[in-house]
Amino acid sequence: MEDNSNKQPSRRRFIRQTALTGTGIILAKPLHLLAETGYSELVSPNIKSRGYAGTDVQGKLTPWAFERRAVGDNDILIEIKYSGICHSDIHTIKGHWGEQQYPQVPGHEVAGIVTATGKNVTQFKVGDKAGVGCMVSSCMKCDSCKNGEEHHCETTGMVGTYGTPEASSPTGITQGGYSNNIVVTEHFAIKIPADIDLSYAAPLLCAGITTYSPLIKAKFKKGDKIGIVGIGGLGHMAIKLAVSKGAEVYAFTTSDSKRADILSFGAKEVIVVKNAADLKPWFGKLDYMISTVPYAYDISNYISCVKPYGSFTQVGQPINGELTINNFNMIFNRVNFNGSLIGGIPETQEIMDYCAANKIYPKIQIIKAEEINSAWDRVVNKEARYRYVIDASTI
Amino acid sequence: MEDNSNKQPSRRRFIRQTALTGTGIILAKPLHLLAETGYSELVSPNIKSRGYAGTDVQGKLTPWAFERRAVGDNDILIEIKYSGICHSDIHTIKGHWGEQQYPQVPGHEVAGIVTATGKNVTQFKVGDKAGVGCMVSSCMKCDSCKNGEEHHCETTGMVGTYGTPEASSPTGITQGGYSNNIVVTEHFAIKIPADIDLSYAAPLLCAGITTYSPLIKAKFKKGDKIGIVGIGGLGHMAIKLAVSKGAEVYAFTTSDSKRADILSFGAKEVIVVKNAADLKPWFGKLDYMISTVPYAYDISNYISCVKPYGSFTQVGQPINGELTINNFNMIFNRVNFNGSLIGGIPETQEIMDYCAANKIYPKIQIIKAEEINSAWDRVVNKEARYRYVIDASTI
Ligand SMILES: [Zn+2]
Ligand SMILES: [Zn+2]
Ligand SMILES: [Zn+2]
Ligand SMILES: [Zn+2]
Repeated sequence: MEDNSNKQPSRRRFIRQTALTGTGIILAKPLHLLAETGYSELVSPNIKSRGYAGTDVQGKLTPWAFERRAVGDNDILIEIKYSGICHSDIHTIKGHWGEQQYPQVPGHEVAGIVTATGKNVTQFKVGDKAGVGCMVSSCMKCDSCKNGEEHHCETTGMVGTYGTPEASSPTGITQGGYSNNIVVTEHFAIKIPADIDLSYAAPLLCAGITTYSPLIKAKFKKGDKIGIVGIGGLGHMAIKLAVSKGAEVYAFTTSDSKRADILSFGAKEVIVVKNAADLKPWFGKLDYMISTVPYAYDISNYISCVKPYGSFTQVGQPINGELTINNFNMIFNRVNFNGSLIGGIPETQEIMDYCAANKIYPKIQIIKAEEINSAWDRVVNKEARYRYVIDASTI
Repeated sequence: MEDNSNKQPSRRRFIRQTALTGTGIILAKPLHLLAETGYSELVSPNIKSRGYAGTDVQGKLTPWAFERRAVGDNDILIEIKYSGICHSDIHTIKGHWGEQQYPQVPGHEVAGIVTATGKNVTQFKVGDKAGVGCMVSSCMKCDSCKNGEEHHCETTGMVGTYGTPEASSPTGITQGGYSNNIVVTEHFAIKIPADIDLSYAAPLLCAGITTYSPLIKAKFKKGDKIGIVGIGGLGHMAIKLAVSKGAEVYAFTTSDSKRADILSFGAKEVIVVKNAADLKPWFGKLDYMISTVPYAYDISNYISCVKPYGSFTQVGQPINGELTINNFNMIFNRVNFNGSLIGGIPETQEIMDYCAANKIYPKIQIIKAEEINSAWDRVVNKEARYRYVIDASTI
């Protein structure tokens, strides 16, 4: 739903020359090469990291020691405290969205404390709370980047937080947040207000922004009827966000066991869908809908629940992105179907500040790193309630 | 793209009691039953018709003698002069959109001369030009019907011109325009201006309205760039209509041999698409697009040719309505995808008047009835240039 590493224009792999020192510090590259490659800021040592990495499409994560680039002049180093588990992590590592390079550390809901800053950094200081979401770089020159839509960068495309080939990464690809630290350009770091717990802040960086952005674009009015399909990590945030903005929320789930939770999130009604007939009474009833379902499903009958000329936004990304739509539904329902990809940096900051100020927190279960693999299984089996967050001190 | 007989709520089959007379005239039903069934207007004899009917999913049409209902008080009888061949006729008869009842006479681009009128008819008189498009009835009581969107009737659904189970039809289903005559409620007949040839008027009743309606809804401005995908019967009308309304039209076709024709229709540029790479240069370039392609195809890359937040309308209906969309395209392109079904009666009258006044005519090839089957093959093989129209005097 959020990560799109494999869709990026492929980049020249930058094979770095490195020099090991006896202290375990690794110099980014011989100094005489730096000027030639434009990475002249990388004169401090590479950062040693520990993480949980996938090594093949089996998707079993194992502990891995690796390096991140040195802290550049515009970078901050974050000591990670919490890292959310997103269904996208699973799809990516298992190769559901395209071939991957391994080892690869997933994770794009990253919250921690700043422990170092480059000399040009102005927005963060050591000790600040900071977060990283689904992207860590973009060209910053095109209209989209200048307009705060870095995720729609028109030249290089955004650089995903993990799995994207990237010149400055010692491993050749970006490495994500199931790790004890991360280095990121300050522009792509999100300020986390003091009064929100880092464990709550983490899921806002993907589950939050991915649902917040289309909800804001939908420009709904107070009292509008909004349907949310798929009540997991993203869906439960979508309910809370829509309710907080004044919507009357109708939650569509296949899990009857989620009913009480969903009502506690503020939904007006829970529709447990066992088959297409359960949707018929809802045809043409809702002003807007978001679906977070990350697998191919009977989407057309859900789309038909929106009123004519309304919109339906799919944020869940199925295997290979494939969704089969029945155009007979579409010619009768007259609904606009669209997709939405996370949100830009300013909007991600906006939802972080909004949720902190309004105490809108995800419902989380904190796990140890050794539980990651079983947590992934539970996410796939729809047993998460509702976001697993890794305690990074256990990595 | 237009017909949707098989999607209608199924209706109780009305088995009619009939009495043959020696003169070949068939009384609708014994008079004492009429009051009970609400068909008290059906006191005149059923209408004898000749048509070309499909008899199974093989889709070979053969001559067939059948009956239409008697001319009721609100009905007109049209002697058909020309009948267009639409790709929907082929899909329907071959069962591509659902199971069918046979024999079934297709055809929903019907133009002819009024030869009888019921006593309540006010809009037509004997000798008038008149046409019938894709529907022949609806409830006329719901909001959609009252607002001139009879094709979106909210109670019974529209009654398609052929293949829809319908109580007043002696054959149990409506029978279409590959025939020498048709009986229709005057509300569902279109007035054809004196100065447009009936052979040109016929294709406006489906190919015309199906593309005109979404073009009007798109509210484009003069000079906007509009893409038309699939340049057959519908697509070539879409070009002519969009050009006449001031658009700069980009035509996407797989047939290089259509290039000169397409430019003669007023398109600014012809893009011959052999593979997905041919579409990449067009990503994000167009203000609006319509696709008339009536088969599953690589739709997502076409959708991506629209600018962010623009719209793409699919009017072609593939087999079983199934279209596979790649949601990776959708989350990046930010385009609204929607479908569109023909148009209501007032809008169909509007395009008829507009085309007659502005001399916007389809490019047609008139054929004899005995050529219907080979014409169908040529339509499927994309060899039509651009609409086959049956000379009904040959039926
Ligand atoms: Zn995510
Ligand atoms: Zn950019
Ligand atoms: Zn048609
Ligand atoms: Zn109606």
